[in-house]
Amino acid sequence: MKFSSKIQRCELSPIRKFYPYQVACNKKGIKIYHLNIGQPDIETPPAYFQAIQQRHKPVLAYAPSPGIPELIQAVQRYYARLGIPYAEEDILITTGGSEALQIIFNCILDEGDEILVPEPFYPNYDTFAACAGGRIAPIPTFPEEGYHYATREKIEPRITDRTRAILITNPGNPTGSVLTPEEMRLIGDIAREHDLFLISDEVYREFVYGGEPLQSMGSLPGLEENTIIIDSVSKRFSACGARVGAIITKNRALQQHALKICQARLSVATLDQQACAALYDTDPSYFAAVREEYKRRRDTIYRKLQEIPGVICKEPQGAFYVMAKLPIDDADAFQTWLLTEFQDNGETLMYAPGGGFFATPGVGHDQVRFAYVLNCQDLTRAMDLLKLAIAQYNAR
Amino acid sequence: MKFSSKIQRCELSPIRKFYPYQVACNKKGIKIYHLNIGQPDIETPPAYFQAIQQRHKPVLAYAPSPGIPELIQAVQRYYARLGIPYAEEDILITTGGSEALQIIFNCILDEGDEILVPEPFYPNYDTFAACAGGRIAPIPTFPEEGYHYATREKIEPRITDRTRAILITNPGNPTGSVLTPEEMRLIGDIAREHDLFLISDEVYREFVYGGEPLQSMGSLPGLEENTIIIDSVSKRFSACGARVGAIITKNRALQQHALKICQARLSVATLDQQACAALYDTDPSYFAAVREEYKRRRDTIYRKLQEIPGVICKEPQGAFYVMAKLPIDDADAFQTWLLTEFQDNGETLMYAPGGGFFATPGVGHDQVRFAYVLNCQDLTRAMDLLKLAIAQYNAR
Repeated sequence: MKFSSKIQRCELSPIRKFYPYQVACNKKGIKIYHLNIGQPDIETPPAYFQAIQQRHKPVLAYAPSPGIPELIQAVQRYYARLGIPYAEEDILITTGGSEALQIIFNCILDEGDEILVPEPFYPNYDTFAACAGGRIAPIPTFPEEGYHYATREKIEPRITDRTRAILITNPGNPTGSVLTPEEMRLIGDIAREHDLFLISDEVYREFVYGGEPLQSMGSLPGLEENTIIIDSVSKRFSACGARVGAIITKNRALQQHALKICQARLSVATLDQQACAALYDTDPSYFAAVREEYKRRRDTIYRKLQEIPGVICKEPQGAFYVMAKLPIDDADAFQTWLLTEFQDNGETLMYAPGGGFFATPGVGHDQVRFAYVLNCQDLTRAMDLLKLAIAQYNAR
Repeated sequence: MKFSSKIQRCELSPIRKFYPYQVACNKKGIKIYHLNIGQPDIETPPAYFQAIQQRHKPVLAYAPSPGIPELIQAVQRYYARLGIPYAEEDILITTGGSEALQIIFNCILDEGDEILVPEPFYPNYDTFAACAGGRIAPIPTFPEEGYHYATREKIEPRITDRTRAILITNPGNPTGSVLTPEEMRLIGDIAREHDLFLISDEVYREFVYGGEPLQSMGSLPGLEENTIIIDSVSKRFSACGARVGAIITKNRALQQHALKICQARLSVATLDQQACAALYDTDPSYFAAVREEYKRRRDTIYRKLQEIPGVICKEPQGAFYVMAKLPIDDADAFQTWLLTEFQDNGETLMYAPGGGFFATPGVGHDQVRFAYVLNCQDLTRAMDLLKLAIAQYNAR
């Protein structure tokens, strides 16, 4: 039997290789501060659980393929509050932002086609592109420049006749970068001038810390045919386990193509959709409190990282990640060492090594991503551990 | 912007085009007997709703990518009761049987590769294969032969150097055919001799009406590396809206490749998995009652179909569909006529026109699939309507 060449090019999660060390560490009774995964510790609004516990019809039937009307209308009202008037037909409910990306990639990529993505990027884009027969063409960025990518000079030379789309994550995972309105406009202009789709992954929209109004590429006039918003309840409502997201675009031809795949996979889980519809009535005070908490964490981890000699990072403006260059040879080797040789008062830490966020060979191995999904006290201790560990590691 | 050539080859659901006529029919107050969709009317076991209403952790977190252990172990115990000893690592939980198929197709198909499937077949196989870059290569079968396909003569000549797998649906959708143990062995032998994967879609396993023991290709020795079981709770527990299925195979290399995609899409909905784990403790009397009900329906619709002059069909042995050749020119045109021109005492019916179940051009347009998901009284009336309608249609 043969496996496809595309699946052989894909890789298992780069975090996975540390799992045996993590288990051994736990067995020795060592406490690990987990800054390696993007699972928020914030409570899901109780409305979700209340809605799912309501009386249900006796037959748990398929939902309509585009999504249940209550949820589509809730998403529609949410965007109306942002000042973006989407029609119900502009919204397709998906099994998380993940399925939204898989569907869109299948709609636009043939064998050998490319999607332009600022690097470092969310590693799963790579697997989704490969499965659709295409590949990620990276736009290199640098920690010394705060991973800035929104200039014509960085983007345009990378466009080829195989480029089908520009994909951005805003606010950014893993970099925490947030585009200015002018930068959004620039990227939109480039997409339109080159007749490219503009896929805007905005699942971290609410997580911005500079007091900016909430943004969306969907608000830019003249880009209605180009723009595709990837949305999700996972981070917005700390409801990662609901697996509910959306494809949002005014491009009707694209919606019709995407609907073919939605119909083939039948539907998204019925009760999760009902419960997510209820989430959209969450009081704005919820987001204000969550934003305040993450801002405190961002400030804490950034302050502590600056105190470590040789660390290069700029203050992240959004999401709940910070990407940094560490003064070490190799982030994979350092992580292994942290789990096998290091401990301080019975404690150590984990992060996401940078290599997995890069498509350019050999790049990113001295960079790491921290998810600040722990409280400030734990973050402070984790960064103290990091400082101590770097010193010990380099003095070996 | 360009769309992929593969999505342009895919089609929207063939049922969809009748929707405007259906709406108009409803507006006129005409009752439609729906034999067009495979949504069972059987109640979901209450255990599902009880489990989902239990107290939950305050954070709705991602589930593990391969599935939650409780559900994997429940699936494992279910197969152990069938006499098939699967390890936990042999089971990957997916978002319905649909995602199981999408993942497997991506693992084994490159551009231009083929999957051999007896025709007529479940139309969504076509979209999943196209998205993975491949295509369905049909094995033609005929209503006069009861859609029988399990012979070396029918299968082997269709195998080419681009064939990667044989895909069967057993019990069959849309034909209701059920393989004998000897036929299962034969197909397994062919797969092994030609070094092909054998994808066995067994989501209708419980729906057999001849008193046969429940079967699985997974029970055949010597085929452990070839066989991939596609499983789902949708029909088994009348829980279509849960969107929970599984990839089950002892081929560890395949499992590792499939896990790459499972990790990239993160997880299956957490609460649905918990609720589905509870479903697997459903008392066997549930299945006995459901099977008895469907058998009555099968007997009813088959008896009534035989009473209509010119209809060709053999008694289906499983699932809840019957495929038949009708004495009409074109099933699409006849369906449109049924919704726009026909009615008897304010009633008419819908079925799934045959064309969508065939990849061979021009074939199947005088065939239709009936889903017997209505009670016997409604089925009887629907078949009386059909008989009357055929006579009127052909006398125009």
